Amino acid sequence: METVSTNRAHGGTQGVYKHASSATGTEMTFSVFVPDHTAGETLPVVWYLSGLTCTHANVTEKGEFREACARHRVIFVAPDTSPRGEGVPDDAEGAYDFGLGAGFYVDATEAPYAANYRMQSYIESELPALIGDQFPADMSRQSIMGHSMGGHGALTIALRNPDQFKAVSAFAPIVSPLNCPWGEKALSGYIGTDKAAWRAYDACALIQDGARLPDILVDQGTADNFLEGQLKPELLVETCKAAEQPLTLRMQEGYDHSYYFISTFMSDHLDWHAERLKA
Amino acid sequence: METVSTNRAHGGTQGVYKHASSATGTEMTFSVFVPDHTAGETLPVVWYLSGLTCTHANVTEKGEFREACARHRVIFVAPDTSPRGEGVPDDAEGAYDFGLGAGFYVDATEAPYAANYRMQSYIESELPALIGDQFPADMSRQSIMGHSMGGHGALTIALRNPDQFKAVSAFAPIVSPLNCPWGEKALSGYIGTDKAAWRAYDACALIQDGARLPDILVDQGTADNFLEGQLKPELLVETCKAAEQPLTLRMQEGYDHSYYFISTFMSDHLDWHAERLKA
Repeated sequence: METVSTNRAHGGTQGVYKHASSATGTEMTFSVFVPDHTAGETLPVVWYLSGLTCTHANVTEKGEFREACARHRVIFVAPDTSPRGEGVPDDAEGAYDFGLGAGFYVDATEAPYAANYRMQSYIESELPALIGDQFPADMSRQSIMGHSMGGHGALTIALRNPDQFKAVSAFAPIVSPLNCPWGEKALSGYIGTDKAAWRAYDACALIQDGARLPDILVDQGTADNFLEGQLKPELLVETCKAAEQPLTLRMQEGYDHSYYFISTFMSDHLDWHAERLKA
Repeated sequence: METVSTNRAHGGTQGVYKHASSATGTEMTFSVFVPDHTAGETLPVVWYLSGLTCTHANVTEKGEFREACARHRVIFVAPDTSPRGEGVPDDAEGAYDFGLGAGFYVDATEAPYAANYRMQSYIESELPALIGDQFPADMSRQSIMGHSMGGHGALTIALRNPDQFKAVSAFAPIVSPLNCPWGEKALSGYIGTDKAAWRAYDACALIQDGARLPDILVDQGTADNFLEGQLKPELLVETCKAAEQPLTLRMQEGYDHSYYFISTFMSDHLDWHAERLKA
């Protein structure tokens, strides 16, 4: 692991790091905020998964998470959203919703994506091992959140690994890739056309198939341009109701899909996570 | 005035606007955050002047000011740092510290800059009139802050107009253009080589020449790369001490010159301003 930069911020250290990933076969960059702590002390870890087009940098610069992380004394990790670099195959037409910046947190099985697009393994296994090794992290106390495609990532990763995360929340998540154009394009490209294989990457399908979490927090803006065509929170509401899966969905009047929305409710989410991350 | 964008954020509206400026002879872009308010109500105005290379966007995206502005119910205005556009003369070598992005909040008198580089008139007169006209602003309650070159702007504008601003603060300000390379380059280029004319644009010189404010708040990081060569807060300390000008200078251990530093202490500064902006 190599340090790209460190800056003192909000009584802690905001770092950016890169390393050679065995999961993706590429160099991967991520950011970590570590509040000040005493020698030997370890802190809980909150994962933040970003949306389409983003790198680690978007939330690191615009997310307004550091004040609450320092107050609650939790580490905040922001990975990239896809493998990158020469030789990594992109969308044939360079679209924003597939390929670079759009890994969808899956392990691809389809050529030519299967070699590099292994974000599931990267986020679930490789990067946690690195974080546990290189940072003062209490890996027995992790939680996960994300935005849009990253909200999909956070929900599906938590539903598949309920023992690994003490809390999960999302900002404007894609709740069902099986039922939206972004999901159909991405999963058919990465996983293939057998939709049975998609169910492990669909929050609603995972819940329908029996996965459960203690609770889920979702904020969704009513002025989000992607609300009706892509995000469809009503599918999650219906699924959770039928499955008796606890869900707190807050429709936020007038808010859109941007970091102006995310940064507004970030502190609320971190309060909610911190409560569930207590030792 | 034309609206470029509006986004709901932190219980208010973050807008970006542009207009044809008579002061600079160019189109100028600025951002305004307005907390929710009742019909007919007016709110105090905090001005934020940015540093070298910045536009309105840097603090708007990275400044973490909206939560405190909404809490205190104050409007936050972030102008650009220079005129821009075709025909606006830039530094001969395109350097970052003169010309575009480096207006230094002066009214230039030297050719070819005098036609457009009139940021003093723009910030002191033209833009306040527009804000008072177009936003629910109580222009009898204004305060001003800034970063680096914008800290210089905030201090000098407040010292020249003590009745216009109820509070002034700065993050890592240039305290004396007469005594640093940035200031020498900028003021000789914009104002000419007669250093007597520079004193109206030098916070230390203004205080030495009799200007006074009720108090001044300055935060300065100890790990700031520009601390010794350009910023020299000790000059402000000595000047204020000799003049019995109240000054609170806080040296912040390990902090640098970036928005990681600014965003950490933004809320403190807004608390301090809000206390002094009370009706």
